[in-house]
This record gives sequence, structure tokens and C-alpha cells, in this order.
Amino acid sequence: MRMSERTNAQVWLKSRPNGVPQRSDFGIRMAAVPQLAEGQLLIRNEFLSVDPAMRGWICDAGGYSVQIALGETIRAFAVGEVIESNNARYPSGARVMGLFGWQEYAVVLDNQVLLTVPSGRHTSSLYLGVLGLNGYTAYFGLLEIGQPRKGENVLVSTAAGAVGSCVGQIAKVHGCRTVGITGGALKVSQCIEEFGYAAAIDYKGVTDLDSAIRDACPSGVDVYFDNTSGPISDAVLRHLNIGARIVVCGTAAYPSWTPWNRGPRPERHLLVKRARMQGFLVTDFTLRYTEALHHLSKWVEEGAIHYREQVLEGIEQAPGAIQRLYNGENTGKLVIRLPGAQATA
Amino acid sequence: MRMSERTNAQVWLKSRPNGVPQRSDFGIRMAAVPQLAEGQLLIRNEFLSVDPAMRGWICDAGGYSVQIALGETIRAFAVGEVIESNNARYPSGARVMGLFGWQEYAVVLDNQVLLTVPSGRHTSSLYLGVLGLNGYTAYFGLLEIGQPRKGENVLVSTAAGAVGSCVGQIAKVHGCRTVGITGGALKVSQCIEEFGYAAAIDYKGVTDLDSAIRDACPSGVDVYFDNTSGPISDAVLRHLNIGARIVVCGTAAYPSWTPWNRGPRPERHLLVKRARMQGFLVTDFTLRYTEALHHLSKWVEEGAIHYREQVLEGIEQAPGAIQRLYNGENTGKLVIRLPGAQATA
Repeated sequence: MRMSERTNAQVWLKSRPNGVPQRSDFGIRMAAVPQLAEGQLLIRNEFLSVDPAMRGWICDAGGYSVQIALGETIRAFAVGEVIESNNARYPSGARVMGLFGWQEYAVVLDNQVLLTVPSGRHTSSLYLGVLGLNGYTAYFGLLEIGQPRKGENVLVSTAAGAVGSCVGQIAKVHGCRTVGITGGALKVSQCIEEFGYAAAIDYKGVTDLDSAIRDACPSGVDVYFDNTSGPISDAVLRHLNIGARIVVCGTAAYPSWTPWNRGPRPERHLLVKRARMQGFLVTDFTLRYTEALHHLSKWVEEGAIHYREQVLEGIEQAPGAIQRLYNGENTGKLVIRLPGAQATA
Repeated sequence: MRMSERTNAQVWLKSRPNGVPQRSDFGIRMAAVPQLAEGQLLIRNEFLSVDPAMRGWICDAGGYSVQIALGETIRAFAVGEVIESNNARYPSGARVMGLFGWQEYAVVLDNQVLLTVPSGRHTSSLYLGVLGLNGYTAYFGLLEIGQPRKGENVLVSTAAGAVGSCVGQIAKVHGCRTVGITGGALKVSQCIEEFGYAAAIDYKGVTDLDSAIRDACPSGVDVYFDNTSGPISDAVLRHLNIGARIVVCGTAAYPSWTPWNRGPRPERHLLVKRARMQGFLVTDFTLRYTEALHHLSKWVEEGAIHYREQVLEGIEQAPGAIQRLYNGENTGKLVIRLPGAQATA
């Protein structure tokens, strides 16, 4: 394989954690960038995504995704510019989003590109967040699995997060009353003031989550968008209305599923309330991403959807980034900006 | 209130168990039969139904059904003959099924009648089992909640029971491969020989339920019709296919939900497999019972659905009957025959 003269900083998996990946589980190495083969693109990454799902890609064998191997460059979404192309579909100069990894340069085939970023309308980092997989996750998870109806009560966990904040606002667009569960007084005020929740619960600050949910949802819960599992979800189960839908989108309460986590059984709640608990992966909706992007862009432009972005500068921030998500340190979408990227909004 | 000369043996709730109701929780008393008021019917019960759901009606406060009060006659389905009527819809001589209670005579309004038993086609006891609520539970639970598709694998717990045996056979009518889980070698052979399961697992006899399910369902589980909850369901969760549906119909593994039962959390399985776990009560389908009865009658007459019935003689058998269900002593539908009833088939 011939190499170009560029060198490529890559974040790679040095040790496999059982639990939330820590800074020390990653290394950064310099690699050469290979010359392009037939059909390939060379992408200069501008923003790297940090997503809770990466914990599962790194830790879980037998999950929905192939486990990242020791020594492998970290699989991750990124947005960047095509700077060389052997593929007519994505010419030089195009800006694209896809699975380009935690690295400065990516050489990929077009099946790793998820979409071409429309030029000029929004900062490209948004295509990793509210206009990217986070937004699509909120859109399809809420609308297809949660199936909210006008006037219903939609309760969201990690309500100020990249996915949760979008879920709450899409539900509001659809005429629902929205309630958020989040950690800390700052995020509670963001939920109310920025993301339009009718009420928000600080699960870290309340002494009795059960009665806090009852107070915030006096007419019960029709849709629960669950990003946490764990004690938050256990408390929500007691407040389901008949026919409620639970969207199981993430399990942020648990750093590991080895051994399997235990808790109160949901069956009796589901039976008595004729309720549904359904797992969801956005990748099952790949063929409809443009539909989601169309609506999300419109809602962002109209001001119906607000978003938060937290930007870390430089690839050296990547190894410590996943633990920030699980520590609850961030609000909104966490991205890593590489040199030469556009400024964010 | 004027009384007729008839006396009425009634089974009443003497003490409230936390757990499976035992013989000693019930009393039998003789009461007078009141004269009919406007619109009422007098029914002479022929067969009394014994159903697992009665545990919940007796024990659970805040469940889907009003708790039976201490001193109250036991709420139960029964089939009987109208012997006096002040209601043109159900004249004397009609045979009806409804919530007539564990007693010899019932004075009811027509809203307690679920259906008129068609004359002559089947023994009337079947309208408490395969042609009654058990059959409708199997029909709507499997078809509406489980949504089986031709060629899929349908796994049923309490597979030889009144509901389970019907579920397996309806699934087979719809072109599915059916596997049953049941307790004991005798019921395993009934599953295979009478109810047409492709395979059956004796959960009491196997040392490793997990590998037994893997062997019986080599291509995984698409629909799990769950009558048990508990360790059986935990084992099944590991074998779900992508997009699997779990119908939560009953929780026979647990004699009580006070305190709430705990177990491995299902969320991660549901997420990874994009699977659905949904609670179900047949009473949500009341307006469609005639549709279910039409199909079930046809399948029974064609020999596509076989059933088992266990008949206890006399109302004095009622107090000990619910514990038989939870002990796994019965196969098929358990009913109590009162004097003067038709012989069973």
C-alpha cells in the first residue's frame, strides 16, 4: 500500500474496560494516510462525535454492533470534508457525515458515508447532533416507537442531553405535554427555559423520585422515552397510564452489563397497564434519515427545536470524552473540534 | 327484598391471602335467592370457571380489577341456564356465560352476561375454556399483540395450560413453528401429541433451561407468549430474535407481587434485539369476542385445536381449586361442575 505524505493522529483502543471507558483505555498514535484505492474517499475530519453508545461498542461482546478490537482505531461518527475522491458520488470539496472514526483523516468507501452535509445552512457539527444521529434517534424513537398523540404526557430521561432535549421538543411540536428528568439544578433550568419542558425533575436533588414524578405528571405518563434504565425507570413504571409506551433507547444508568443488572420486574406493571416496553436502534431507520433531517432542519430554523453543543478542542480530548457523558458533566451534544474546522455557531 | 324459596350455596372470601389463595381462605354459605328486579335474570350455574387471574382479583389492590372484598361471593366466570328472566334479551331457557360467581344461582343484570352459548354444538363448559375467555385470551394475545408471521418461531410458557395450549395451536394454524415450555414429562408428551408443538421443554426436568431453549429453538424466538414471568422468561430473553414480540399475559411464577418481585433487567435485551414486551388483558377486546368465538369454534370443529378439560364435581371443590392451578396439578382447563349440568364431552 502506497502512503501519502500526510500523517494521521488516531485514537485507538489500548485496553478493554468493563464499565465506562476511561482516558487510560485509549492511546493516540501517528499513522500514515494510505493512498486511495478504487472507489475510496479521503476525508479530513472536522468534528468527532462522542456518543453514549460508544461504551457498548467498546465493552459489549454480542451486542448489536461488532465490538471494537484492541488496537483498532475507535469507531465513531464524524463530519469532515472530502479532500481526495475516487468516487463520483462524493467529489472533493463535499462535506459528509459518517463512521469516519476518532482520527484526523479517514479513507473510506462510500458505504461508510451516511449523508452529504447541505452547504451553508448550519455549522457542520450539528450534523453529529440535532441534525445527525441524535436528532434521528429522537425523531424515530419518539414518533415510531413512542407514537405520541396530541395532549398526551411524554416523560423523558436524560432530558437535557443531546437525544433527550430533542425528544422533548419534538413531542412538544406534536402537541404533547413534556416532562424531563435530569441531574442537577442547572440542567433543570435548561430543561424549562431552553427545551420547553412543562416540568423538570432533578433526580439527584429529590428525596423521593416517586412522588416527584407524581407531582410533575399528575395525569400519569403516556410515553416514557428511556435513556437510562435503572432506578429512574423503576420509578416511572409506577406512573404509567393504560396503554403507555416505553421507548428503550439507552441504559445510561449502568456502566456495564457484565454481570447483568437486576431490578424490580416490569411484567406486572406492563400487564396491569397494558403497556409496552420496546427497544429501539436508530440504525433500523437508515433509509429514512433524509425524512428526519428535513423535519429537524425545519424545526431548528423555525426555533421550535433548540440545542446545546459542548465543543472540546483537539483530538487529545477524545480519550477522556466518553466518561464525561456518563459523569453527567455535559449538557447537549459533546463534540471534538479538529484544527481547520469551521467555527461553531 | 323478597326471597324465593331456593337456597344458594356460595363460596365467599373469608381471609385475604398474600400469595396463592388456599382452601382455608374461603367459606361456603347458604343464602336465599332474591326475587328478580326489573331487567334482571336468574341463572342456575352449570359450570364454574377456575382461572389464574382470580389470584389477582383476590390478592392485589390497585390491579386492573376491583379487589374482591372480604365476605363477598367470589367473582368468577360461569356458564349456566337462565331459569327466570325479566329481560327480553336473555329469555328463560337461554344458556349464557358471564361473571356469575362461584355460586349455584346468580341474579344479574344483562351487563354481566358475556355471551349466549350457541345451543347443541359443544358442551357448555367449553365456553369457559377454549371457546371462552381462555380461547379469546389466546386469540387476541397471540394475534393482536404477538403478531406472528408465517414461518416464525413461537414459544409458549404454561404450554399445556388452558390458554397456552390454545396459543400454540392458533400459532400453528398461522404457519408458525411452535415450542412449548411446561412442567413434567406427562405435560411434555401432551404438548407434542395433543397440542402439536414441534418441541416441548420440561422446565422442572432440565438442568439448564438456557441450553434447552437453544436446542428447541435453534433459529431463535420471534414471539414469546409469556404466562409465567420469572426464571423461565429470563431464560427466554437470551434467545430473542431481532424484532421479537413478548406477550405478557400472566405471571404464574409468582404467588404474590407484595413485595414487588425482582430479576434480571430486560432493557438491554430489548434494546439490542429491538424487541417489544407488551402487557395484555383480554377484556380490552370485549367488542370482538364474537369474532374470536367464530374462529375458535371452526378450528375446534375442524380438529385444528384440541383442548383438555379437568372437571371437579361440586361446589365444595371450589375453595381448593386455585391452588391446583399454581401447583401445576392440572392440565388444560379446570372447571367445577354443579349438579344438573350437562355431561362434559
